[in-house]
Amino acid sequence: MTPRGTRRDDTVLGRARVSDTPELEAYYAELADREAGALWTVANKIEPWYPQPQSAPVLWRYAELRPLVRKALDLVSADDAGRRVVMLVNPGRRDVSAAVGLLYTGLQIMGPGESMTAHRHQAAALRFVHEGTGAWTIVDGEKLRVGPGDFAITPNGTWHEHGNEGDDGPVIWQDGLDIPLVNALDAGFYEVHPDLHQQPGKVVNASVATYGGNLLPYGAEKWARPYSPLLAWPWEATYAALRGLADAAEGSPYDGVIAEYTNPVTGGSVMPTMGAHMQLLRPGQATRAHRHTGSVVYTVAKGRGVSVIAGQRFPWRKGDIFVVPSWAWHEHANLDDSDDACLFSFDDFPVMRSLGFRREEAYADNDGHQPTL
Amino acid sequence: MTPRGTRRDDTVLGRARVSDTPELEAYYAELADREAGALWTVANKIEPWYPQPQSAPVLWRYAELRPLVRKALDLVSADDAGRRVVMLVNPGRRDVSAAVGLLYTGLQIMGPGESMTAHRHQAAALRFVHEGTGAWTIVDGEKLRVGPGDFAITPNGTWHEHGNEGDDGPVIWQDGLDIPLVNALDAGFYEVHPDLHQQPGKVVNASVATYGGNLLPYGAEKWARPYSPLLAWPWEATYAALRGLADAAEGSPYDGVIAEYTNPVTGGSVMPTMGAHMQLLRPGQATRAHRHTGSVVYTVAKGRGVSVIAGQRFPWRKGDIFVVPSWAWHEHANLDDSDDACLFSFDDFPVMRSLGFRREEAYADNDGHQPTL
Amino acid sequence: MTPRGTRRDDTVLGRARVSDTPELEAYYAELADREAGALWTVANKIEPWYPQPQSAPVLWRYAELRPLVRKALDLVSADDAGRRVVMLVNPGRRDVSAAVGLLYTGLQIMGPGESMTAHRHQAAALRFVHEGTGAWTIVDGEKLRVGPGDFAITPNGTWHEHGNEGDDGPVIWQDGLDIPLVNALDAGFYEVHPDLHQQPGKVVNASVATYGGNLLPYGAEKWARPYSPLLAWPWEATYAALRGLADAAEGSPYDGVIAEYTNPVTGGSVMPTMGAHMQLLRPGQATRAHRHTGSVVYTVAKGRGVSVIAGQRFPWRKGDIFVVPSWAWHEHANLDDSDDACLFSFDDFPVMRSLGFRREEAYADNDGHQPTL
Amino acid sequence: MTPRGTRRDDTVLGRARVSDTPELEAYYAELADREAGALWTVANKIEPWYPQPQSAPVLWRYAELRPLVRKALDLVSADDAGRRVVMLVNPGRRDVSAAVGLLYTGLQIMGPGESMTAHRHQAAALRFVHEGTGAWTIVDGEKLRVGPGDFAITPNGTWHEHGNEGDDGPVIWQDGLDIPLVNALDAGFYEVHPDLHQQPGKVVNASVATYGGNLLPYGAEKWARPYSPLLAWPWEATYAALRGLADAAEGSPYDGVIAEYTNPVTGGSVMPTMGAHMQLLRPGQATRAHRHTGSVVYTVAKGRGVSVIAGQRFPWRKGDIFVVPSWAWHEHANLDDSDDACLFSFDDFPVMRSLGFRREEAYADNDGHQPTL
Repeated sequence: MTPRGTRRDDTVLGRARVSDTPELEAYYAELADREAGALWTVANKIEPWYPQPQSAPVLWRYAELRPLVRKALDLVSADDAGRRVVMLVNPGRRDVSAAVGLLYTGLQIMGPGESMTAHRHQAAALRFVHEGTGAWTIVDGEKLRVGPGDFAITPNGTWHEHGNEGDDGPVIWQDGLDIPLVNALDAGFYEVHPDLHQQPGKVVNASVATYGGNLLPYGAEKWARPYSPLLAWPWEATYAALRGLADAAEGSPYDGVIAEYTNPVTGGSVMPTMGAHMQLLRPGQATRAHRHTGSVVYTVAKGRGVSVIAGQRFPWRKGDIFVVPSWAWHEHANLDDSDDACLFSFDDFPVMRSLGFRREEAYADNDGHQPTL
Repeated sequence: MTPRGTRRDDTVLGRARVSDTPELEAYYAELADREAGALWTVANKIEPWYPQPQSAPVLWRYAELRPLVRKALDLVSADDAGRRVVMLVNPGRRDVSAAVGLLYTGLQIMGPGESMTAHRHQAAALRFVHEGTGAWTIVDGEKLRVGPGDFAITPNGTWHEHGNEGDDGPVIWQDGLDIPLVNALDAGFYEVHPDLHQQPGKVVNASVATYGGNLLPYGAEKWARPYSPLLAWPWEATYAALRGLADAAEGSPYDGVIAEYTNPVTGGSVMPTMGAHMQLLRPGQATRAHRHTGSVVYTVAKGRGVSVIAGQRFPWRKGDIFVVPSWAWHEHANLDDSDDACLFSFDDFPVMRSLGFRREEAYADNDGHQPTL
Repeated sequence: MTPRGTRRDDTVLGRARVSDTPELEAYYAELADREAGALWTVANKIEPWYPQPQSAPVLWRYAELRPLVRKALDLVSADDAGRRVVMLVNPGRRDVSAAVGLLYTGLQIMGPGESMTAHRHQAAALRFVHEGTGAWTIVDGEKLRVGPGDFAITPNGTWHEHGNEGDDGPVIWQDGLDIPLVNALDAGFYEVHPDLHQQPGKVVNASVATYGGNLLPYGAEKWARPYSPLLAWPWEATYAALRGLADAAEGSPYDGVIAEYTNPVTGGSVMPTMGAHMQLLRPGQATRAHRHTGSVVYTVAKGRGVSVIAGQRFPWRKGDIFVVPSWAWHEHANLDDSDDACLFSFDDFPVMRSLGFRREEAYADNDGHQPTL
Repeated sequence: MTPRGTRRDDTVLGRARVSDTPELEAYYAELADREAGALWTVANKIEPWYPQPQSAPVLWRYAELRPLVRKALDLVSADDAGRRVVMLVNPGRRDVSAAVGLLYTGLQIMGPGESMTAHRHQAAALRFVHEGTGAWTIVDGEKLRVGPGDFAITPNGTWHEHGNEGDDGPVIWQDGLDIPLVNALDAGFYEVHPDLHQQPGKVVNASVATYGGNLLPYGAEKWARPYSPLLAWPWEATYAALRGLADAAEGSPYDGVIAEYTNPVTGGSVMPTMGAHMQLLRPGQATRAHRHTGSVVYTVAKGRGVSVIAGQRFPWRKGDIFVVPSWAWHEHANLDDSDDACLFSFDDFPVMRSLGFRREEAYADNDGHQPTL
């Protein structure tokens, strides 16, 4: 099922190629009166040869976003904003507030001592911490403390609230949510916690303590929810695992040494609508290009490098965020010859897999590298 | 997680309630310059209390559509149209050619002796035959003959082509596809068959002969594709099964005697993105109202009745098509006191289940019946 | 992992080859005193090159068993016997009352008007009816009427009782149980119904009416037990399905046109410890030989033929029962040139699959046919 | 389905209660001539009220076994023995060389510099290291180094060989295998490696490096074998995980702080036929008694305590091995008031679960503690 690339549809038997006539135009008007239409007027558009995302590749520099995010601290109160977030909006997806495809992302800031009220919603959320040491979140009663490089989840339907208990400056973390997907499927619900705040359990990061060493605790066999009971993955353990993996395995030709944050009870993605990965590019490593269905939001966790997306170069350094639309060619390079670089990413791959939409293709020419402009 | 209903967000702690000021407007412009925005300006809209579909409940009368569909026979050739289809377009979903939610449906007409070329696409398709005796389709090499009331599938990625080998008039069948879903997820592919036509196997309706009697044939254990190897469900067996079920079980309070067309190898839905049901309403039966996430396209297969959707009455008879948007209250009644009525339907429930989006609620008041206008 | 066949172990490096000495014998005695032993004294025996079943191939002629079974009617009362059953016992498995491997089978007789009390047990049971028209069984409250050629199940843990409500002679049916397996795993439980009898629901064969036409009824998605909710498969539908399958498919080279009785909710075997098949041999068909792990009990449902098992010929006709031990070569032939023959069988294949023990091999030589003595 | 306990069967309607008569004895002889029997002569025995294991509770003291194991070093060469192992044999299971139920265990010794040849078999194996620092094993090409307290697996069908590359004394490790299960199901195969030895990959403990931090590496989604790709669990990480779990969770009332070694790709047991656990008893902790189907072999990994099994006290200390037969009441106590104690165990629970045989019951009386003799 290799796509044949773009070409003029009107020369191909099997594509619609009807020209307008006065008679047909009258017919189309008659159809429109009855909430109907002629398929052949839109067929080639709605059944394209291959994906035609409205999303463009974009890179947001952390150095440029950070001052804007900090400015929000003074401009709006946390209570009035609900959450004080600068969201990143793809120029092709402003109608649905998406960064790419049906994925939302934003940078949230919390000043020292601030806290947000508790709510829950159908949309699933994840966090990746950029800076600050006092961040905490309570997810269905479990208090988590998270620092730079940590990854945490707030699965669909869980009560959650968060804040900054440090005193040495604001916390900035990145939110990732599937809000546009939830809305596209008309499935959104939202609730404010009846008491505005939860009573957390006594043990902080309990799920991190519970799921270590590739052992599953008593009771795990009864876990029946569609998401991971492990709620946070600290940076130190993640980076150590990537280093171990780098010693033991070659990795992917397209992504370097890459691993998926995993639901320990199933071996599957952390949530049913969003997956997340961390990848390590060895010093100087330049991967080969591939493309796949599914959209990805990348955040630079360590180092500096460049990614080529749809033929366009995007240099990046720590904290930068960039997106790869579905079916866009992409490849990554670590520009440091002596240190590794790490990219955190989240994606809609679990959706692609569940619905049978996953497809991947390697870039065959030019030793696997795209020509760039 | 019961939603709290609609109310003014600006009075609720936990919702965004920031008023515009000149300073903020300048800030918003600054954000827009960097492909960013302030979440609190859209938060209440993109995280609603409960689903806010753009789709409206609509009923299309077959008596009105049929002349329009037949007119297409003369207006366009099959070759030029690709497929000669009058699609049903929800007034709120014209941008994506959807009948409801992310589901497409249309009425396709084929004159005696006509046939269409073969293609395949990522979108999954299903058929429900309205009239005509000569319809056939070839799906991945298996020829199927289908008549009125028959249900057949063309799973994602299968080669397919069809035609009318009868000589007593045109065939009209209804297509159902997940095209809007595939496009929303940027996952669409399309291919014309290299030979324009397939070579079918010798046995017609082979999969129907193969999967009978609740037995699975040799080799079925190796079936690894994400859809049903059984491709068609003839009306006679389906109706007999519903009658048997009506004798043995009470059925659903909301849907009467209802059963799902099933993948015999897994017991799951026929395809990963669309499910299909047939339901029988006993003579005079009026079901209670409920609502659920997920969109549904109904087609009246037998009898006459009325459905109340979001408080609006939609009387129906055989051949009529109507839609229920996500989270809209709905209930059905058979208006014939001596004969049963049957509704065929297809839906996106498999998507709702895979993504953890399924939710349902019974209408509690007034003995389960909505007030109507 | 092709086995290397039998050969002298003491010439092979990697096998135990320790000769007894007085010193070693003293050592073995010392070990025995402490409930211990030396592995190398038994290693070659307990880790054979390939399976070494204690079961032999056996065929029981129905013509010979039937008078013995009928005699039991007069010799013991149903109440005293619990169940009046002549069990078939493999000469190599008398210690565990097995017909082959860890499978039990027997012929049960019930006189007109007789009924048995209700009980339940961990062991799973199945029935295949040989003769008589009045047989019934109640399984967890569902009354089933079964006639010759019908297959029914009594899954592990379900209350069940049965009887003969006809007045034209006794019923003889065949029981199949996994009792020896349950005992080998120390997992057997048994309970007499507190009221000695169940109150059946009003609808006879309700599950047969409920699961037809490859549709699943409302509520089926909530079925969580590890066995089929469909409890009986009447002969007529089974035979019709086999005939349809014979038209549409070639079948298996080893088994002819064969299909497995299936749990409609999962597409899996009817119970977690025993599967069942019906196979049709076309007129004159002689299959090729293969062997596999797993034990099988066959019952001739129709026609006459011969099976060659481990090189030994077993001619059979309707009602005869024969067994194939694990890893024994076997092939089947229909000796009638104008009519088909049918073999019912039950097996422990679900156990083989669950535990990762399933292995199969085709007989390569002599055009797939074993030499016979 | 609570069992009713033992009682006289002949007083219960629903149990067999036929007395021998000359006429019946003649009948039984006639049946025996035809490889048949009367079910009612064995029914009460083969369908007991509750499990009747032939296995007894047994404890083997490491202090007593160790000299016997070391003696084997001098008595037989590794090449002649194949593996130099003292197996632990339950007095009720000598016929199948089982330690309990269908589980085999033994203590294997390898002198400095020794190595064993490579083979593979259907039986699955696991190791728990008692003493010595030079142990290694190669499993399907991956070299593992294992030390005291480490757990490693050799899944069914994998090539494996092992040895001792240390120079400071012999290695003693404990083997656990499902040999009796494999034989009970007539499913055993055995092969010597054609080259007698494998060529290991360059990275030692590669799978341990690969599966850390609750991340799954690139390629893990394609793992399709029925066992864990992670092959070893070092003691340090396991103990740390148990300590973390002890901080975060209460644990089981019957087993203290217990966790299962897990296949990271599925969240299931490490192999389809055997599971393994490590449990920590807090200082002074005494658990409550329960019983369950399934057999268990325990090894004391740390500390000292006592277990009560079927009313019998078994004091233990580090290195001791004891077994709990299916459905035997059992409870554990740590006799040290200041340090924790750890029990390693392996079991047939995966088999119990796959076959639907798992059942558990808490000891209700006497505050959960059995009376002891």
